[in-house]
Amino acid sequence: MAFSEFRPLDEKSLFDYIRATPALSEKIGTNVDEMKIQEVGDGNLNFVYIVVSPAGSLVIKQALPYVRCIGESWPMTKERAYFEATVLKEHSRLCPEHVPELYHFDRTMSLIGMKYLEPPHIILRKGLIAGIKYPLLAEHVSDYMAKTLYYTSLLYNTTTEHKRAVAEFCGNVEMCRLTEQVVFSDPYKVSHYNKWNSPYLDQDVVAVREDNELKIEVAELKAKFCERSQALLHGDLHTGSLMVTPESTQVIDPEFGFYGPMGYDIGAFIGNLILAYYAQDGHADASNDRKAYKEWLLKTIDDTWSLFEKKFTSLWNKHKDGEGEAYLPEIYNNSEVQQLVQKKFLIDLLHDSLGFGAAKMIRRIVGVAHVEDLESIEDQSRRAKCERQALEFAKSLLKGRRKFQSIAEVVLAIQQSQ
Amino acid sequence: MAFSEFRPLDEKSLFDYIRATPALSEKIGTNVDEMKIQEVGDGNLNFVYIVVSPAGSLVIKQALPYVRCIGESWPMTKERAYFEATVLKEHSRLCPEHVPELYHFDRTMSLIGMKYLEPPHIILRKGLIAGIKYPLLAEHVSDYMAKTLYYTSLLYNTTTEHKRAVAEFCGNVEMCRLTEQVVFSDPYKVSHYNKWNSPYLDQDVVAVREDNELKIEVAELKAKFCERSQALLHGDLHTGSLMVTPESTQVIDPEFGFYGPMGYDIGAFIGNLILAYYAQDGHADASNDRKAYKEWLLKTIDDTWSLFEKKFTSLWNKHKDGEGEAYLPEIYNNSEVQQLVQKKFLIDLLHDSLGFGAAKMIRRIVGVAHVEDLESIEDQSRRAKCERQALEFAKSLLKGRRKFQSIAEVVLAIQQSQ
Repeated sequence: MAFSEFRPLDEKSLFDYIRATPALSEKIGTNVDEMKIQEVGDGNLNFVYIVVSPAGSLVIKQALPYVRCIGESWPMTKERAYFEATVLKEHSRLCPEHVPELYHFDRTMSLIGMKYLEPPHIILRKGLIAGIKYPLLAEHVSDYMAKTLYYTSLLYNTTTEHKRAVAEFCGNVEMCRLTEQVVFSDPYKVSHYNKWNSPYLDQDVVAVREDNELKIEVAELKAKFCERSQALLHGDLHTGSLMVTPESTQVIDPEFGFYGPMGYDIGAFIGNLILAYYAQDGHADASNDRKAYKEWLLKTIDDTWSLFEKKFTSLWNKHKDGEGEAYLPEIYNNSEVQQLVQKKFLIDLLHDSLGFGAAKMIRRIVGVAHVEDLESIEDQSRRAKCERQALEFAKSLLKGRRKFQSIAEVVLAIQQSQ
Repeated sequence: MAFSEFRPLDEKSLFDYIRATPALSEKIGTNVDEMKIQEVGDGNLNFVYIVVSPAGSLVIKQALPYVRCIGESWPMTKERAYFEATVLKEHSRLCPEHVPELYHFDRTMSLIGMKYLEPPHIILRKGLIAGIKYPLLAEHVSDYMAKTLYYTSLLYNTTTEHKRAVAEFCGNVEMCRLTEQVVFSDPYKVSHYNKWNSPYLDQDVVAVREDNELKIEVAELKAKFCERSQALLHGDLHTGSLMVTPESTQVIDPEFGFYGPMGYDIGAFIGNLILAYYAQDGHADASNDRKAYKEWLLKTIDDTWSLFEKKFTSLWNKHKDGEGEAYLPEIYNNSEVQQLVQKKFLIDLLHDSLGFGAAKMIRRIVGVAHVEDLESIEDQSRRAKCERQALEFAKSLLKGRRKFQSIAEVVLAIQQSQ
């Protein structure tokens, strides 16, 4: 069934749509009576349906022309679905192990059909709140980040291909603007979208707005976000954009995808792990003090960066004589200079990642969209203590990011902050 | 006359073309017998005709699908004419005092009709070689740079407008690739395009290729050039892209225009002034030791940056409550933080400018396209002395750019280098 213009689907029309769309019905059949459908969109933006039948399963995701968690008063282009589908396709080509398959995309309907990640897959953030360890998480996420960031950068591609792709993703500007507002602007000014744990954090919120050094550094990060087309980012790689089991890690929801600074993706993930760390004291109880889990979180932060660094360097070495235009083999042709450029590239990237990660932490405490890790701590005073620790660490990380020479030093600083 | 497909014009067909094109004939009439035509393209890329009649004058510039100074063996998109016309239009809107008016553009023919800059306008580079002082040069160029760079950046524009324009100029990728090759790559590797003053500079050329620290820094500048969409650049703002009289300064030839780092334009101009400085000793003779002229060049370098800084800051202050998204007024809302962000922005921009300027100097001594400032020194040994001084200074400037806190320190370093 081809709709000639956009219309929001409900359960009934969704069945009709699936039946009329071979790319979907071949996964799940056409027998409506056998299909079970469930709306599960718990995110901020879209409607998401899980459809299951004896023949198979799939997920249907439809973008509506506004921000779901705010309502129609905050319009948001449904063209984001086109960019989400495009990133899904590209990232799953580069890293099929950790990106679900795209079955179908309908631009008119802003509708994506994709693989359903069956139970026991859960949102990583919920697992972190529950204190579940994922022994392969760092291995998997570092794999995804190394592959998607390396292969979409000028380390691997020609300028011609790079600029073509950059131009296309300039079209996802409304999603970039949303990030600019909620990550880099609103937390540093009075905005009626901002929320915080009041009255506990009232003074902390004012302190953020009055911290000139912090605001200067945030401006630099924002400029990088807006101006630097380094690689095709996921654009929203927090722990709510990952579905996991102890054996599987799947990256979803790349609707904020665009060509931006690599550190923004890496920072999103690491920053959210640090938030999870500071939230643990709020979830500790007599049966579980969460100390071991906090150690596991720190180890996962360390491993994620260390493994990323190793894998990214390995891809760089593997393709160093390829077509990538950033470091031509005839120039960077001896092992000494090769090691020096890699070291410089990766320390700059670590600093970017720490800066963006810290900015993502701050906005989750004083901005519009909070994280369940902290929100689910019922005692507001106890929650405020966690939030304040996280906020203070994030501020000092953002301002002092360039003094860190390794991820181990960052982990040490987190430990020493409590 | 509309040509349905591209054809290179000659004098005869040019007359026909003008007669059939109202935007041109209204400037110069249709009486062919009264028109005088002169091919003056002395640049590296295009054919340029000056057409003069009793009724008026104009310049016709046609891009051919290869690099003129190399020949058909180096193909080059003639679509560059479209981007040149687009930048001309935009920059002359922003700074009509220093950018000649565009009369006509024909995309099929890759043909631009524009104002003829009448005598005594000459190419600035030729004036600098002749030792002519231009007392308003720094004032004018700083004006052009401040206006074109400020008004095409996120300091003034919304992200929406910025990304739309960035996407469009991604199309000028072939010109960007040419710069990448001749400025950031070829000088640092063996390339059959490279030329140098042999045998005098044979060892210097090898030293450039073996300077790991230099190559690491060049990689960072190249990444900025390729990835950072900060403002709509001229893209080739050397002293051969300016037509001057003592009273007038006009910027021409923006066919390399694209959204790139501001420092690339500023550095191109300053780097070429520094080259002119080091060339002076090669032009000194009994009648003129050029010492006073060298002082004027240093003063012009200092004034250019100082005036640019002042004017750029002034535009920033003027529009600080406008729609630009980089520094929202609600965040950067007190004079202390405003001054701090401006100081940081401008010191970072100075470092970028010095780095790019140095890279432009190096490529003019060991790369494919040299400058007449140095090439016109007939005694090869004397010329080599100038070139080596310029090259050594450029290398140390590129590597040590971040240690300079003001343009005065740079000028002092130039003086102390001799």
